[in-house]
Amino acid sequence: MMRPLNEEKVFKDPVHNYIHVQDTTIWRLINTAEFQRLRRIRQLGTSYFTFHGAEHSRFSHSLGVYEITRQIISLFERNQYADWPKEEKLLTLCAALLHDLGHGPFSHSIEEAFDMNHEDWTCRIILGDTEIHNILCEVDPELPAKVASVIAKTYDKAIVVNLVSSPLDADRMDYLLRDAYYTGVNYGTIDVDRIIRMLRPHDGRIVVKESGMHAVEDYLMSRYQMYWQVYFHPVTRSSEIMLRLIFRRAKELYNSGFQFEFMMKPIISLFEEQLSVEQYLKLDEALIQTAFMQWTTERDSLLSQLCERFMHRRLYKYVELESHNMDMINDVREAFIKAGLDPEYDLVVDLPSDLPYDIFRPGDEVSQKQILLLDRQDRLQEISEVSDIVRSISGLHRGKVHLYYPEEKLNAALSLFSPSITHIFI
Amino acid sequence: MMRPLNEEKVFKDPVHNYIHVQDTTIWRLINTAEFQRLRRIRQLGTSYFTFHGAEHSRFSHSLGVYEITRQIISLFERNQYADWPKEEKLLTLCAALLHDLGHGPFSHSIEEAFDMNHEDWTCRIILGDTEIHNILCEVDPELPAKVASVIAKTYDKAIVVNLVSSPLDADRMDYLLRDAYYTGVNYGTIDVDRIIRMLRPHDGRIVVKESGMHAVEDYLMSRYQMYWQVYFHPVTRSSEIMLRLIFRRAKELYNSGFQFEFMMKPIISLFEEQLSVEQYLKLDEALIQTAFMQWTTERDSLLSQLCERFMHRRLYKYVELESHNMDMINDVREAFIKAGLDPEYDLVVDLPSDLPYDIFRPGDEVSQKQILLLDRQDRLQEISEVSDIVRSISGLHRGKVHLYYPEEKLNAALSLFSPSITHIFI
Amino acid sequence: MMRPLNEEKVFKDPVHNYIHVQDTTIWRLINTAEFQRLRRIRQLGTSYFTFHGAEHSRFSHSLGVYEITRQIISLFERNQYADWPKEEKLLTLCAALLHDLGHGPFSHSIEEAFDMNHEDWTCRIILGDTEIHNILCEVDPELPAKVASVIAKTYDKAIVVNLVSSPLDADRMDYLLRDAYYTGVNYGTIDVDRIIRMLRPHDGRIVVKESGMHAVEDYLMSRYQMYWQVYFHPVTRSSEIMLRLIFRRAKELYNSGFQFEFMMKPIISLFEEQLSVEQYLKLDEALIQTAFMQWTTERDSLLSQLCERFMHRRLYKYVELESHNMDMINDVREAFIKAGLDPEYDLVVDLPSDLPYDIFRPGDEVSQKQILLLDRQDRLQEISEVSDIVRSISGLHRGKVHLYYPEEKLNAALSLFSPSITHIFI
Amino acid sequence: MMRPLNEEKVFKDPVHNYIHVQDTTIWRLINTAEFQRLRRIRQLGTSYFTFHGAEHSRFSHSLGVYEITRQIISLFERNQYADWPKEEKLLTLCAALLHDLGHGPFSHSIEEAFDMNHEDWTCRIILGDTEIHNILCEVDPELPAKVASVIAKTYDKAIVVNLVSSPLDADRMDYLLRDAYYTGVNYGTIDVDRIIRMLRPHDGRIVVKESGMHAVEDYLMSRYQMYWQVYFHPVTRSSEIMLRLIFRRAKELYNSGFQFEFMMKPIISLFEEQLSVEQYLKLDEALIQTAFMQWTTERDSLLSQLCERFMHRRLYKYVELESHNMDMINDVREAFIKAGLDPEYDLVVDLPSDLPYDIFRPGDEVSQKQILLLDRQDRLQEISEVSDIVRSISGLHRGKVHLYYPEEKLNAALSLFSPSITHIFI
Repeated sequence: MMRPLNEEKVFKDPVHNYIHVQDTTIWRLINTAEFQRLRRIRQLGTSYFTFHGAEHSRFSHSLGVYEITRQIISLFERNQYADWPKEEKLLTLCAALLHDLGHGPFSHSIEEAFDMNHEDWTCRIILGDTEIHNILCEVDPELPAKVASVIAKTYDKAIVVNLVSSPLDADRMDYLLRDAYYTGVNYGTIDVDRIIRMLRPHDGRIVVKESGMHAVEDYLMSRYQMYWQVYFHPVTRSSEIMLRLIFRRAKELYNSGFQFEFMMKPIISLFEEQLSVEQYLKLDEALIQTAFMQWTTERDSLLSQLCERFMHRRLYKYVELESHNMDMINDVREAFIKAGLDPEYDLVVDLPSDLPYDIFRPGDEVSQKQILLLDRQDRLQEISEVSDIVRSISGLHRGKVHLYYPEEKLNAALSLFSPSITHIFI
Repeated sequence: MMRPLNEEKVFKDPVHNYIHVQDTTIWRLINTAEFQRLRRIRQLGTSYFTFHGAEHSRFSHSLGVYEITRQIISLFERNQYADWPKEEKLLTLCAALLHDLGHGPFSHSIEEAFDMNHEDWTCRIILGDTEIHNILCEVDPELPAKVASVIAKTYDKAIVVNLVSSPLDADRMDYLLRDAYYTGVNYGTIDVDRIIRMLRPHDGRIVVKESGMHAVEDYLMSRYQMYWQVYFHPVTRSSEIMLRLIFRRAKELYNSGFQFEFMMKPIISLFEEQLSVEQYLKLDEALIQTAFMQWTTERDSLLSQLCERFMHRRLYKYVELESHNMDMINDVREAFIKAGLDPEYDLVVDLPSDLPYDIFRPGDEVSQKQILLLDRQDRLQEISEVSDIVRSISGLHRGKVHLYYPEEKLNAALSLFSPSITHIFI
Repeated sequence: MMRPLNEEKVFKDPVHNYIHVQDTTIWRLINTAEFQRLRRIRQLGTSYFTFHGAEHSRFSHSLGVYEITRQIISLFERNQYADWPKEEKLLTLCAALLHDLGHGPFSHSIEEAFDMNHEDWTCRIILGDTEIHNILCEVDPELPAKVASVIAKTYDKAIVVNLVSSPLDADRMDYLLRDAYYTGVNYGTIDVDRIIRMLRPHDGRIVVKESGMHAVEDYLMSRYQMYWQVYFHPVTRSSEIMLRLIFRRAKELYNSGFQFEFMMKPIISLFEEQLSVEQYLKLDEALIQTAFMQWTTERDSLLSQLCERFMHRRLYKYVELESHNMDMINDVREAFIKAGLDPEYDLVVDLPSDLPYDIFRPGDEVSQKQILLLDRQDRLQEISEVSDIVRSISGLHRGKVHLYYPEEKLNAALSLFSPSITHIFI
Repeated sequence: MMRPLNEEKVFKDPVHNYIHVQDTTIWRLINTAEFQRLRRIRQLGTSYFTFHGAEHSRFSHSLGVYEITRQIISLFERNQYADWPKEEKLLTLCAALLHDLGHGPFSHSIEEAFDMNHEDWTCRIILGDTEIHNILCEVDPELPAKVASVIAKTYDKAIVVNLVSSPLDADRMDYLLRDAYYTGVNYGTIDVDRIIRMLRPHDGRIVVKESGMHAVEDYLMSRYQMYWQVYFHPVTRSSEIMLRLIFRRAKELYNSGFQFEFMMKPIISLFEEQLSVEQYLKLDEALIQTAFMQWTTERDSLLSQLCERFMHRRLYKYVELESHNMDMINDVREAFIKAGLDPEYDLVVDLPSDLPYDIFRPGDEVSQKQILLLDRQDRLQEISEVSDIVRSISGLHRGKVHLYYPEEKLNAALSLFSPSITHIFI
């Protein structure tokens, strides 16, 4: 199914140096309107408020995931590994390239606010009346459905799904490297070449050669640190909270018949939960930012102030609670209400959480969420059985509850709080 | 005038590792709405169409220019150089931080299309009714005017102007490093620490110690290569041409009374050349992209097609002419007209040009545009008198004329061209 | 006591970019014969056999330790921390610069073979009749003794000792960065600027601000990975074993009156355990390599073969045992003897071990081996009480027993082994 | 002729990340005594006295040259370029790997002092009774002679010679990158991937695609800067001068029958110009340094002082002359003689020179020393005809005459000099 280009084409990339495109279909997919749209969706959402360098888009990341996948398959082919199904190459590359296609603007927040899911949208775009759909169809009428099933993790060859989504997939490898590069932190600098060299197609899935254990440990630790240093940074969480509060308020206003001075069609469709693929594709971060900027002068002062906060980076401040104490949180909420603050918009309780690695428990079935090591005798072992490091971080939930609030309002109310509540905020 | 923060604050930066903020005024300036707006203006305009990593904003760059200036002044102070006027520190740092404040969306194109100038806007914002103006005034009511005069290069102490704008200023040093980092090309990797170590305040201006000549050569060569490899890349030029054609067409339509389905107030003010500071501050790249996206469905097919080209990266193709032959260009234009193409919108002639370094000519006055070397006997020499390398690139204009055009229309018209014209395009 | 240079001097350094020398005494110490000798002692001993890039010397590392210490003190001074004893600056810098002065050729192996200790030699050189001693005396006749006591960890101000040797000292920070740079592995890339920013002089010792916990975790993990990936790499261990066997054999021969065709005075003194400082200073890696090269043609075939192995990198092969089973090891030794192999020279049992971090146990006194975190309420906590990551690696001993042997001899003997022994080696 | 390894092997390399070995012959060549010897020969001779990081060996560089060559050939094969003679692959790789095999200790100085040539030695080792010779013979009895002829540039297929030695060969690309990495200067950071992508086998030689012109310009400028910033650094030149004076003095003494307290056989053979391959292979930098260290206590004070200078880095100081004035140099020499200084050992006149690129002159034959660009019409042009940059640096000889001398002796004599001579030295 591969249709080689006459001449290999390259994109200059700061992370992989060059992205190599060797196939006509891949080249055409990149040049579709739907794929180019990813330039207007940032990879790390609002993280640029915390790390000003993190302004990179999902376009770059998608190319990176494609490139890592290409390198892995190229190594499999070079070494003629018997367990790699060669005929799946184009499908795998397409799925790798397109796996993030459905991300919306400020993805995590909008998904939470409107109960959407970017994977569903990826599949809708691939299967809908789009340029991407047409290009895939030209290769094979079954291809769009196949690509969608790989992304939905329902494709029947687990090894293909494995490359695109597993604890050690091309997606995670690229985002660690890329996010580290653009934020400037060095926690994400993993030896991706070494990890790639250690991967083996084996009995229908991707496993890791035993001698690659340390590289995998290092990768899991990098992931762990990136989560706590970057992805869950409280300033980023605060900006996501701003976003969610804006969406919530605007939808409330819309539902209550408020007349917006500025409104756009894709946003109406979003509020009405009737987004078509066509409207969704116009819903990029430029549009959201433009609406928010215009809303800074809407008559509803709650909305306009929230929009000002987001646009000018006047985020809610936060305190970290020592323990996850629901009684205390309820007390705080009560105190806010008594002091005349709004318990819905002036206080947000947040608990970030992540499992750096899902440990294997004896008796469990071998799942896609596990990393298996292949030893010299061709035996498989789940990595946390062998690595102290992995075992030690597997069960960790380090997240602590944070309270977010508008500083000025809180300061004005502090004198009305009881000492035990006041104490939390100073 | 400096008001030290209790505790030094830092921003993590991929280029300088950390940006150090030690003064309250600087901290407050960064947190203004006007400065935060720079997050929505890309440093390299449309270059991300050519180098997908180049998505960084003028916000990062402005912090970087501030940081380099801070490092230079810190070294001057540490070494107690007599010719450095210590009392100018805060003014210099403010001017460095704010020098790009007035950049509009896709700056070069919009300035060309509407005959605006970002330096004027920088001064209007600093002197207008803005948060920045107020913060500067609090320090000293004269400060806004002083900062503006440094940026306008009219401040009476040339040494301050020199640090902020000269052939070897903090601005150029940061953008070379930063643009190289984000594009991923390595042409811009200069040894900025070494250059900084070689700078000397001397007799009212900044000069370079003679032993730093090679570092300066390397810097000028980097600049030269970045111009031709990145800033003047024909794909980037093509995207800038798209932008200008869109602006031209939209303004034409507006002037002719066309009823836009989507229009926003700052754009109307732009067309009417009546932008207030307040409107200008809303005119960011998100707004422009949103307008263009909406215009992809306007009834004017020229406008809608141009917007589609820009949004989906379907740029005009180009050919490079071997020589700058006006007759040939006129012949091409004639042929386009005869073949029914639009000479205004279907053919754009472009000649990029840059002087990597303005050479000193005997008899010239010493200007701000020159780099002076200071030898051990405290004599000054203009660098191109000493360096073969600098002399050799000083007069270079390497730009070649390029013709840009819509590929499909041209292909359809090719058979109507005479062979000599056809020949140019294949 | 500081005597500033007229002009700051710099060394170009790949790790820190520039090493800054601002004091005359430091400059003069670097230019002594004893300090220059460190150019002929590799930082990582025989690791270059495993990682060919690891050819860097203790000279570079010593400059790096000095530079990090200088940066820490500079930050302490800039922030005017009350708990930093300013008068200790020169002493601390000298101790940082000189702390590795006494390292001999292939330090770890020679120390093990001849029961020497490089810290003792550092002190002997500083206190002996050397250029370094004279320069320190010129500043203050007490200075040599003080510098020696800091290095011997007996100096009465623990905070000075802390900067030079503690679990988070300038020594460890430099070697992680430097060894990672020269080997090319990325396990050692720590954010040293951030760690430095988090250090606080506090109540007579150096502690870490609580918000720096993650940076410290990352640093400890880097150290852990470097130990197992680089410092304890079995190929490096094998080359160290070669070295020790050569030293053992040569000393045996010398003691037995063997007439060496090639012998040098410092080696005789080494064998006779009568090394003077003067002789020790001549005992560099060039001399050891020259002796070994000449000994490749000595009449004792055991010695000459071992030397050939070392010089031409024909190292012993190894197997890793699944468990530390003394009975099995004894069985192997028996089998070697029965098969006519030499149990002293043909079989080496090796168990590398390291404690990545010494955990605090309730009831223990606070020791120099602990990293203390300082929270906002000025309370101190030992890091493993707070960090799951640190706790999880604190007690880890991952080392496994390896057997090293000459492959050809083993292969020739394999048929004489019982199957259970044979099984270990294939 | 290729004999693939069962499994590709890799070396971790800081410059190329991994060196890939896929062929048995290459693997065996690397493991010979002769190739391992390159670990004891520094790539940059005495440059570590100027840039302390520059302690890397010719071993690393040789692997790097091999790796770049492997990548070039791999690209040629992948793109199935018709003009690449596939059957020459192993020969080319062997020649790339072995091209520096004959380098002696502190190569440039020893070659100058004893009129030797490392290429001759490379060929003698390849053709002599060595492990390398035997391994090559096993593949093909003609192979040693072929490899030698490629290195001697007499092999009849110019394209093979081109890859190994030409102005744009793998050798130069690796040393620029590697020397920049280890010294820490950034002048040598070229985009080697891009250059490789632009190379084309064409009509019996390697040419460059026209669109690669800028990458080649950048490469030539890097080379130019590295020459003047690193390779010709006056401190390095001074250390090379020390070396040559030591060799000269020691040989004089030997010839005059002086009884050395310390002498080694390879040095005697060197002095008698009767070095066998066997002796030459023992003549590494460890041996030279050991001899020099021992000679610091020889009875001849000139020799012992020169050796002290070299071992303890007490190099001759230097002045740069404004012009190359032979009369002035003669006057200086006279003054030295009159003042009782030794015109042979106390004054060294040095003029470094390099041609960054040999320009093509109309009428010249196309030579191996030229870089040819291939345009879209398959026409070849010599690069300096097209590139202003290359033309401008082609003829440059920037070297200035330097005088080197022992500072203390000169200072003692200064009062005896006439003012015009004194003036030169202050």
